[in-house]
This record gives sequence, structure tokens and C-alpha cells, in this order.
Amino acid sequence: MTVTNFSWINGTWFPANDASIGISDLALQRGFGIFDFFRIIDGKPVFLEDHLDRFFRSSRSLGLDPGWERQQLVDIIHHIATRNNLTEGGIKLLLTGGYSADGYTPGKPNLMVTASPMLFERGLGAGLHLMSVEHQRQLPEIKTIDYLMAVHLQPQLKASGADDMLYYSQKGVTECPRANFFMVTADGVVLTPATGILKGVTRKKVLESALPGIPVIEKDFSLVEAMAAAEAFITSTTKPVRPVVAIDGKVIGNGSAGAITRQLNEWLQAKVFTGILYEQD
Amino acid sequence: MTVTNFSWINGTWFPANDASIGISDLALQRGFGIFDFFRIIDGKPVFLEDHLDRFFRSSRSLGLDPGWERQQLVDIIHHIATRNNLTEGGIKLLLTGGYSADGYTPGKPNLMVTASPMLFERGLGAGLHLMSVEHQRQLPEIKTIDYLMAVHLQPQLKASGADDMLYYSQKGVTECPRANFFMVTADGVVLTPATGILKGVTRKKVLESALPGIPVIEKDFSLVEAMAAAEAFITSTTKPVRPVVAIDGKVIGNGSAGAITRQLNEWLQAKVFTGILYEQD
Repeated sequence: MTVTNFSWINGTWFPANDASIGISDLALQRGFGIFDFFRIIDGKPVFLEDHLDRFFRSSRSLGLDPGWERQQLVDIIHHIATRNNLTEGGIKLLLTGGYSADGYTPGKPNLMVTASPMLFERGLGAGLHLMSVEHQRQLPEIKTIDYLMAVHLQPQLKASGADDMLYYSQKGVTECPRANFFMVTADGVVLTPATGILKGVTRKKVLESALPGIPVIEKDFSLVEAMAAAEAFITSTTKPVRPVVAIDGKVIGNGSAGAITRQLNEWLQAKVFTGILYEQD
Repeated sequence: MTVTNFSWINGTWFPANDASIGISDLALQRGFGIFDFFRIIDGKPVFLEDHLDRFFRSSRSLGLDPGWERQQLVDIIHHIATRNNLTEGGIKLLLTGGYSADGYTPGKPNLMVTASPMLFERGLGAGLHLMSVEHQRQLPEIKTIDYLMAVHLQPQLKASGADDMLYYSQKGVTECPRANFFMVTADGVVLTPATGILKGVTRKKVLESALPGIPVIEKDFSLVEAMAAAEAFITSTTKPVRPVVAIDGKVIGNGSAGAITRQLNEWLQAKVFTGILYEQD
């Protein structure tokens, strides 16, 4: 058997097919764990420092000690990329509640690092149709493993013909299950919700973009406002900027990617793909 | 090494310490899975038919095929009790989203059955102090593995000196993280929330109790009403009826178990412990 993929668990390497964890782990028993996920392009981690910042923030917020220092994680990440010949793909750090004697109280956390080859879309990609869902994620600012609602609603999403969901609550639009949401006002101001969301690394880059004539502001807005937007797009690690062309069947703007969406996408693609702006080298 | 405990995974027996699952399982990756848990007393499962009813309901609600028929599960349950010499304890059925190729889409579910020896408290037990928490569980009527908020708040609970949490939302009191809540009105009517909760098996027994002069009704009520109750108690599989003597420091009734709480506890203890009313024999 040719082993094509290695995973790292608590300091030991495993062929990915043999990578396992004891069933008393609190992630499995109680959905208690955090993770982070980032891209490898040309063999190099993209925005790694931001992802590690968030990983350590998430672990502190859930009271989970990663058990490894930041520089050790950087070394493991470079090692797993090399060992898996990962030129382009994703690396996931997953930190769990650990083995629990009573099935409820966290133990010593388990840390897993996995690599998956995957090609990332260059360019803007097709415009997305979103289906709105009234739901507020619990502990939204922590990158927990809680995707129960999102996975549960996949059959309903498929039936609707939409590409992804857009969560909203009484306070307004929040986020997609795995992406941040942005709208562009009639005045050309880019808004992204300020509260009740996971603060994505790509979202942060867009907030910092400072492109001439394209103000980007954190500000909550309603689903009705989003549906009346001049443009809309989402951001995530796997697809830096993707246009949103409809929400619940209501066409956004002229139904194709708007000018501001295109400019932000180009800027971000350059940042991600040129290598000039790698933060970790 | 003496192996004292066996677990069952997908048709195979493992010493509990070796029982493991591949890390691509969607329970671990995305918190996607369901379970059920019931007691063994005198070597026999208690209220098994109710627990199996709920287990199959939960699995259907999340679109997870257990892969085993009801009678096969009954056989496995009796086998695991015998194999572990489980005279008194708990048995857990855990059904996960399975191995996922993309880390998001459910695969073929994994089913695990585990046994743990534990002694159950006879009698009423000490009165509980509850700490209120504004939180509505997602998909509350499905017995999912989502206990993220409950485990997350354990340090805060310990700091408060309370014994457990009481969730409430805008619609009123809902439940404790692992138990149902009941209040007794000044007129001696027993109320338990009707909506936004997991419908516990012990709760069902209390609703069906039909003790003379003790009406039990499903009806939502506010946290303020609960704090002004004549009596309050919780029900769960591990402690059939436990009195609640304070909520957020406000004493309930006279600060000890009330007469109706005691009567329901006695009735339920008899039902659980005498063996007369075992549903599975």
C-alpha cells in the first residue's frame, strides 16, 4: 500500500487512514473542541500568523491548553506540508476537549494536524445564490467545531437550489456557515456585520484593504438591507472573494459580480497568490 | 493487563481503552451526531423502549441511518451488559455523521455502544442550587452531541457555587443542560416547559404519573415564575427526581424538598428500582 498522506496527533505521525482517536474524547462525546484551517499555496502557509493568533485565542476561550508552543506548531505545519508534498492544499489544526473520565469534564486536550491537497479557484468564480436561515451560532467568535445546524440543513439547502446559507438573527445578518458576508451600499460603502460572527482572516484582510475609493466598515445591517444591496460577496479561506448574486431568489444588483467585488477579489487574489505578501516564509 | 470494560463499535468488540474512531468522523470534525443513554439496574435496562424510540427519532431527524435494526440493538445492549458484568450502570449509544471525504458532508454513520459501571443515588438527594443562563439550544428536540455551551460554562458554574445551570430564553424557562425542569404552582399544579427542550424519558414518566391530586401539565413559564414557585425539581436518567432549592440564590419554597417533589420521587424510585415496571425484560 502506498501511503500518500500523513497526519500528526499529539506528537506522533500516522498514515492518514490509521489516524484515530479514543472514543471518550469530548469532541466526539459533547461537541467540545476548536480548530483552525489555512491554505498552502506553492508549499507555503498563507496568512499563517493570523490563523495561529485565532487558534490560540479560540483555545484560550474554551480553556483548552494546546500543549505546544507557537513555534512548535509552525515547525509541525512546515513538516506536515513537506512530508505530504503539499504544494497546494489546506492544513487543519484541531484541538479537542480530550479524554473525559465522566464523559462531561474536559481532560488533557488532543491536538491533531491534518493536510489535504486541494486546488483553489483562481479568479472570481460563479456568483452564489444564498438561502437565508434564522439562526445565531453559539459562541460565534470562537472557532469551535459546532457546525451542527449547517450540516443538518444541507438537504434543505440542496432542495432549495441555493449554493449556501446566510444566517441572520433579530440583530440582522451575521454570516454564512463557513464564510463572512459583505454588502455594498448604493453609495459604494462596503459593510460587514460587526457582531455575532466568527471574525475570518480573509474578512480581516478586506477590512484592512484600504483600496482607493472603497471604504470597508464593520456595521450590522438587516436581511432586508442586504437584499437591497448594490453588490454582495462572501469571503473565506478557500475562496477569498465570491460574488453573491441572489438571496432567497431576490437578485442582488444586476445579478452578476459588481465592480467593487471584482476589485477586492483581484487585490486579494494577488495578495494570496503572488507570494509577495506571505506572512510566513 | 486486565481488561475490565468492553465497547462495541460497528459490530466489533474492543477493550474500552483501545476503542477509537478515525479522525475524519463528522462528530469530531463538525459536532454532528446523536446519542442516547439509559440506566442498567440489577443487570436490566430501564425504560429501554422509550430510549430506543428516542434514539431512532433522533437518528431520523439528523438523517443518520443507524445501520442496525431495533432488535439487533436490543441484543447488543444485553450483550454489552453481560460482557461487562454491568449490574448497575449506564449504557450509551452514540451515532455519528461518519467518515467524511470533504470534512463537511456526512458519510456512513459510525455506531458505538459503551457501558460504564456507576451507582445511582437512592432517595431524594441534596437540594440543588441552579444558576440561570440565557441560552436556547439548537435543535433542542433532537438528542445531539451538542453540549458546547454547558461544558464551556462549567468554570463559571463552579465559580458561582451553584450545582447546575437552568437555561431560559425569551419564551421562558427551558431545561437544564442534562435534565428537565419542573415547577409546582401555589395551587399544587406541576408544570414543565412544553417547547424548546429535549423531551426526557424521565420527564415523560412524570407526565404520565397520574398520582391522585398531583396534576402534571406541559406549559411554558418564565424564569420569574419559576423563582416564585412553591416547589421545583429536575428529572434525568441518572437522578430520577432531584429537588431544586434555589435559583440564582433566590430560595424556592421553604428551601428544602417539597411534598409533591417527595411523592413524585418516591413513585419514580419505585418504578425504576423495584423491577416491577421494567419495560424490557
